[in-house]
Amino acid sequence: MEKLKKYVSVKDEDHFYHQGAVELLIFNFLLILTILTIWLFKNRRFRFLHETGGAMLYGLVMGLIIRYVTKSPDVESGTVYECEKLKSGPSTLLINITNQVYEYQYKREISHHNVNGHQGNAMLQKMTFDPSIFFNILLPPIIFHAGYSLKKRHFFRNLGSILTYAFLGTAISCIVIGLIMYGFVKAMVHIGQLKQWEFHFTDCLFFGSLMSATDPVTVLAIFHELNVDTDLYTLLFGESVLNDAVAIVLTHSISIYSPKENPNAFDAAAFFQSVGNFLGIFAGSFAMGSSYAVVTALISFMHLTKFTKLCEFPMLETGLFFLLSWSAFLSAEAAGLTGIVAVLFCGVTQAHYTYNNLSPDSKTRTKQLFEFMNFLAENVIFCYMGLALFTFQNHIFNPLFIFGALVAVFVARASNIYPLSFLLNLGRKQKIPRNFQHMMMFSGLRGAIAFALAIRDTASQPKQMMFSSALLVVFFTVWVLGGGTTPMLACLQIRVGVDPDEDLKAKAASQSASNLDKNTTKAESAWLFRIWYGFDHKYLKPLLTHTGPPLTSTLPEWCSPVARLLTSPSAYGDPLKDGDTVYIINNDELTENYESSAHIPVPAQDSTGSIQATGKEDIQEGDLGLGGYKLQLQHTAGQPQKNSLA
Amino acid sequence: MEKLKKYVSVKDEDHFYHQGAVELLIFNFLLILTILTIWLFKNRRFRFLHETGGAMLYGLVMGLIIRYVTKSPDVESGTVYECEKLKSGPSTLLINITNQVYEYQYKREISHHNVNGHQGNAMLQKMTFDPSIFFNILLPPIIFHAGYSLKKRHFFRNLGSILTYAFLGTAISCIVIGLIMYGFVKAMVHIGQLKQWEFHFTDCLFFGSLMSATDPVTVLAIFHELNVDTDLYTLLFGESVLNDAVAIVLTHSISIYSPKENPNAFDAAAFFQSVGNFLGIFAGSFAMGSSYAVVTALISFMHLTKFTKLCEFPMLETGLFFLLSWSAFLSAEAAGLTGIVAVLFCGVTQAHYTYNNLSPDSKTRTKQLFEFMNFLAENVIFCYMGLALFTFQNHIFNPLFIFGALVAVFVARASNIYPLSFLLNLGRKQKIPRNFQHMMMFSGLRGAIAFALAIRDTASQPKQMMFSSALLVVFFTVWVLGGGTTPMLACLQIRVGVDPDEDLKAKAASQSASNLDKNTTKAESAWLFRIWYGFDHKYLKPLLTHTGPPLTSTLPEWCSPVARLLTSPSAYGDPLKDGDTVYIINNDELTENYESSAHIPVPAQDSTGSIQATGKEDIQEGDLGLGGYKLQLQHTAGQPQKNSLA
Repeated sequence: MEKLKKYVSVKDEDHFYHQGAVELLIFNFLLILTILTIWLFKNRRFRFLHETGGAMLYGLVMGLIIRYVTKSPDVESGTVYECEKLKSGPSTLLINITNQVYEYQYKREISHHNVNGHQGNAMLQKMTFDPSIFFNILLPPIIFHAGYSLKKRHFFRNLGSILTYAFLGTAISCIVIGLIMYGFVKAMVHIGQLKQWEFHFTDCLFFGSLMSATDPVTVLAIFHELNVDTDLYTLLFGESVLNDAVAIVLTHSISIYSPKENPNAFDAAAFFQSVGNFLGIFAGSFAMGSSYAVVTALISFMHLTKFTKLCEFPMLETGLFFLLSWSAFLSAEAAGLTGIVAVLFCGVTQAHYTYNNLSPDSKTRTKQLFEFMNFLAENVIFCYMGLALFTFQNHIFNPLFIFGALVAVFVARASNIYPLSFLLNLGRKQKIPRNFQHMMMFSGLRGAIAFALAIRDTASQPKQMMFSSALLVVFFTVWVLGGGTTPMLACLQIRVGVDPDEDLKAKAASQSASNLDKNTTKAESAWLFRIWYGFDHKYLKPLLTHTGPPLTSTLPEWCSPVARLLTSPSAYGDPLKDGDTVYIINNDELTENYESSAHIPVPAQDSTGSIQATGKEDIQEGDLGLGGYKLQLQHTAGQPQKNSLA
Repeated sequence: MEKLKKYVSVKDEDHFYHQGAVELLIFNFLLILTILTIWLFKNRRFRFLHETGGAMLYGLVMGLIIRYVTKSPDVESGTVYECEKLKSGPSTLLINITNQVYEYQYKREISHHNVNGHQGNAMLQKMTFDPSIFFNILLPPIIFHAGYSLKKRHFFRNLGSILTYAFLGTAISCIVIGLIMYGFVKAMVHIGQLKQWEFHFTDCLFFGSLMSATDPVTVLAIFHELNVDTDLYTLLFGESVLNDAVAIVLTHSISIYSPKENPNAFDAAAFFQSVGNFLGIFAGSFAMGSSYAVVTALISFMHLTKFTKLCEFPMLETGLFFLLSWSAFLSAEAAGLTGIVAVLFCGVTQAHYTYNNLSPDSKTRTKQLFEFMNFLAENVIFCYMGLALFTFQNHIFNPLFIFGALVAVFVARASNIYPLSFLLNLGRKQKIPRNFQHMMMFSGLRGAIAFALAIRDTASQPKQMMFSSALLVVFFTVWVLGGGTTPMLACLQIRVGVDPDEDLKAKAASQSASNLDKNTTKAESAWLFRIWYGFDHKYLKPLLTHTGPPLTSTLPEWCSPVARLLTSPSAYGDPLKDGDTVYIINNDELTENYESSAHIPVPAQDSTGSIQATGKEDIQEGDLGLGGYKLQLQHTAGQPQKNSLA
C-alpha cells in the first residue's frame, strides 16, 4: 500500500517536471519564431514593425491561445483555507492532508479581492513567472552589455548633457507624471470610479518614477542599423541607460517613503530621508559595481613570479570575468543596494580597465557572450510582455487611467527634453539642434524596466491598475513610436549613414580650426572630465592595466619605492617597450600641458572606416583637440592590441 | 493602517529577493574560488587533486560553514498544520492567516519521519535547490557539449565496443550492484538495522542503475591534458557518455516497474513492460534529438531566392542553434521521454550536419558558448555536491550500506569491463590490451549523473539512504580514483603525449600494410558503419549540408525531378565548384567501390599537428583504409572551410 502511494507520488512529481519543460518550450518556441522573423525582416528591410515589436506580437498571440484554448480548471485553487494556528506566513508550510505531509513554499501575499482571479486555469498561472527572475536573471546581462559596449569616446563628449537628462530629466518626468496622474485620480474619484483612500499622491509618484524609465532597445537598434548621427545616438543611449538606473533607485526610494501621519500630507523628514536614501543607494551601488570591476582588473593584471598569467587560459579568464560581474549585481542586491546600477557601472569599468588586460581570445569571448545573453534576454522580455497581457490574471483596465498615463508620459517627456535642451544649449558649444530635440522627444519609448518595476508589486488594486496601464503604454510606444522611428528620422531630416569615427574627427577638426580664436577652448564638461582623465591616466590605468605610463614616472619622488612595488615588471619588460616609452613620454607631456597646449588640427588618423570606435586613448584628441599627428601614428602603429572596446 | 501593512509586505518581499541574491552569491563565490584554484593548479602542475575535486572540497567547507556558523532558526517550520477540508495537495494553496491571504506553492511531499529534520535553519533549506534545476538547466549543456565535441572519427572506429560497454555493461553493472546491495540489505535486516518491508529488490536495482552512470568529467580532463592514447580515451569517453544516457533511462524504467502483487516476486509481464519501456524511451529520445538537429541543419542550409542566408547573421544563427538544441531537450521531457538522451544525440547530429552549414563566426561562437556553459555547469555541480553533504537535511548514513555500495561499485565495474573486454577482443582486430582494461576499471568514477538521479527522489527513508551513500561513493571515487589517475597511468605504462591525428594515421597505415593478406579487410564494426556511411554520404549529407555529391547524381534516374528540387542552387553555384566536382566524383567512386578497392597506404596528409581532428571526410581513410593521396590533397587544399568539428 505504501509502495503504491509512493509510485503515484513519483509520477506526480514527474508530471511537475514536465510542466516546467512545457513552459520553457513555449518560450523557446516564441524565441525561435522571433529569430526567424528577424531574419525575414532583415531580408525585406521591413522597418515599420521592429523585431522587439514582433516578439511582443508573438507573445500576445501565444497568450491569447493559452488563455482561450487550453482549459484545465484547477478546482482546488480559488478556495481560501483558514488556519487559526498560524500567526504569520512562514516561508515553508507543512500541511497534513489525509495523513500525508506536503511541503508548500511561500510565494506571495494577495489581497482578498484577487482571490477569485485565481480560479483561472493552472497553465496561465505557471506562465506568469516570478518577477525576481526579471531582476536577477534577465535584466543584468542587458544592462551589463549596455555598460560594456558603451562608446566611451562619444559618451564622455556629451557627459554633462547625458547626466542632466538622466538625473534632472528623470526627476522632472517623475514629478510631472505624478502630478498629472494625481489629477486624473482625483477626477476618477469625482465620477465615482475610485475610492478616495485607495490612491495617494505617493502612489502617483511611484507610477511616475516607474514610467520615467525609457527603453534603449528598440530605438537604438534602428539607430544602429541606420547609422544615425552619432551625437544624437550617444545622447539617447546615454540618457536611456542612466535614466533606467535613476528610475529604479527612485522607485525604490519612493516605495520606502512612508510619512508618519496623513499619507497625503507632505512630510519633510520622510522626504529628506527618501532623498538621502536615493543618493546613498546610488552612490553605494556605483561603488559596489566599480570595485568588483577593479578587482577583476587587478586579477587579470596580476603577474606573480613563476606564475603563468591568467590570460593564458581564456576559459578561466572569461569565467572569472563573468562571475565577478554577476557578483557585482548580487552583492549589491544582497547589501540592499540596486544591482542594476551596480552592474551598469561594473560594465563601464570592466570595459575601461579589465578589457585591456584580457587576452585577444577572451576579448572576443566576453564580447560575444554578453552580446548573446543580451540578445536572448531582450527577446525573452519582449515575448513575456506580450504574453502578460493575456496570462496575467489580475488586470484592471481603467480607460481613464490609461488615457491619463498616455497623456502624462508625453507631457512629461516634453517637459523633460525641451526645457533641459534649452538650458544645456546655453552652455554647450555645439548646440543640440531643434530636430534632435524633436527626435529625442519622439524616442521616449517605455520598455523592459518600466514593465519589470510595475510587475514587481501587483498585490493591491492601485498597483494592478498601474501595471495594466504601464503594459499598455509599453505596447503603444513600442509599436507606434518604435514603428514610426524611420519615417520620423526622414521627416526631421536627420542624417543617416554616418560613420561615427569619421564624424567625430570631422567635428574635432572643425572645432580645433575654429578654436584658434581661443575663447571656446573648453569643450563641454571638459573641466570635470579633464581632472578625472588626468588622474585616471596617471594613476589608475598604470595600476590596473598594461597601458599608460609606469607609476614610477607619475607618482611624486618620495613615493618611488611604493611605485616600484606596484608597477608590474611587464611595464618594463613589455615587447612593445620602445614604442611605449616614446608614447608615454609624449602622452605624459600632454596630460601636463592640458591648459597651455597649442591646438593642432588633427588629421585623419586611420582609414579603417569601421563603425567600432578605435579606442580609449582617442578621447583626448576628439574631445580636447590635443595630440599631434606623430604621436597618433606611433600609437596606432605600435599598439594595435591596446584598442579598447568601442 | 492598510497602507502601513502594505509597506511591511513590500519590505518582506524585498527581503525574499535579497535572500535569493545571497544564495547565488555564495555559489558565485565558490566558483570564483574554484577558478582561482584551477589557475593555481595549472601553474603548479598539481595533479593529485583535480579541479573537480577542488570544487567539491570548497563546497564541503562552505556547507560546513553554513551549517554550523549561520543560525537563523525559523520557528514556524517544523510544525505540521492540519487541514481537514483539503482532500489532495493542490498546486497552489491560498491560506487566510490573521485576515491576510497568502499564496503558497506546492513543493513536494515529505514523509512523516522527515518532518523534524526541517527544524534546521532556513538558510540550509534555501541552499538545497530543486533537483529539477539539475535536470533542466545544468545537465543539458554538459551532455550537449559532450555530443557536440565528440571526436567522430575515433568514436566510429570503436563504435561496436563502445555500444557493448554502454548497453550491455551498464545492464551488467546495474544487476550486479542490485544483487550485492540486496545481500547487504538482507544482512542489515538480519542484524536489525532495517525493517524487512522497507527495501525491496527493485529498490536495490534502482540503486544499481543510478550507480552505473560513470562520470566522464574528471578522468577525461586529465586524459585530455596528458594526451593519453587515443583509443583508450575514445573508449572511456564514448562509454561514459552513452552509459549516462543508458543509466538515466534504466533508472526511469525501473522506477515505473511495479509488479502487481508481491514486490519481491518476479513479475514477467511487468518486467517486459519495463524492457519495452526502456527501448521505447531510448528510441524516442534518440529520434527527438536527431530530428531537432535535422531541422536546425535544414534551416541553416536553406537558401531561398532573394533571401540572404542565415549564416550572414551569426547572432541569429547562434541563437537559433542554441534554442533548437535546448528545445530538443525540453520537447523530449514534455513528451515523457528522456531529455538528456535527446540532447546528447542532438549534439552529435548538430556536429555532423549543422556544423558544416554554419558561418565561420558561428562555428567559433557555438563551440565557445557550449564550452563555457559546460565549464560553468560542471563546476556548479561539483560545488553543489560538496555543499550537499552538510546542507541536505535528511541524510541517513548507514556504515554497512555505504560499505556495501563501495564494494558493489567495484565488483560491478570489474564484472563489466573484464568479461566484456574479453568478448570484444575475440572480435576486435586491434585488441584492447590488459593495461587499458585495468585503466578502464580504475576510471569508473561516479559523478554528476549518479548524484542527480539520487537527489531526484529523497522522499522515503530507503531513498535517503541511497542518496547519502551515492554521495559518499562520488566523493570517494572523485578524490581517490580521480587523484590517482596520473600515478595509475604511469604504473600501467600507458602512453601519454599522443597526437590523436598522427596516432590514427600511424595505426591506419600499419593496418593497411598488414591488410595485404586480405583476411582482415573489415575493420571492427565496419559492416554496419559502412552501410550507414554510404547512406549518409549519398543522401543525408547532400540534403542537409553543403558537402557531398549533389542529390541528382546519387538518386536513381526516376527520382531526378525530386532530386533537382531538393538540391540547393549552391551545390552548383558554389565558388569551389571545380574542386568540388572532382572531389565528388572521386569520392563517389570511393563509396561505390568499398568492397573491391585496392588498399593504398595513406601517407601523412597534413602537418598541422593539431589535437583537433581534421574532419568528417577523414573517416574513410582512417577507418576503411581507402582514399588516395591525390584526392586528399584536393580535399584539404580546396575546402579548408568544410572541416567539421573534431
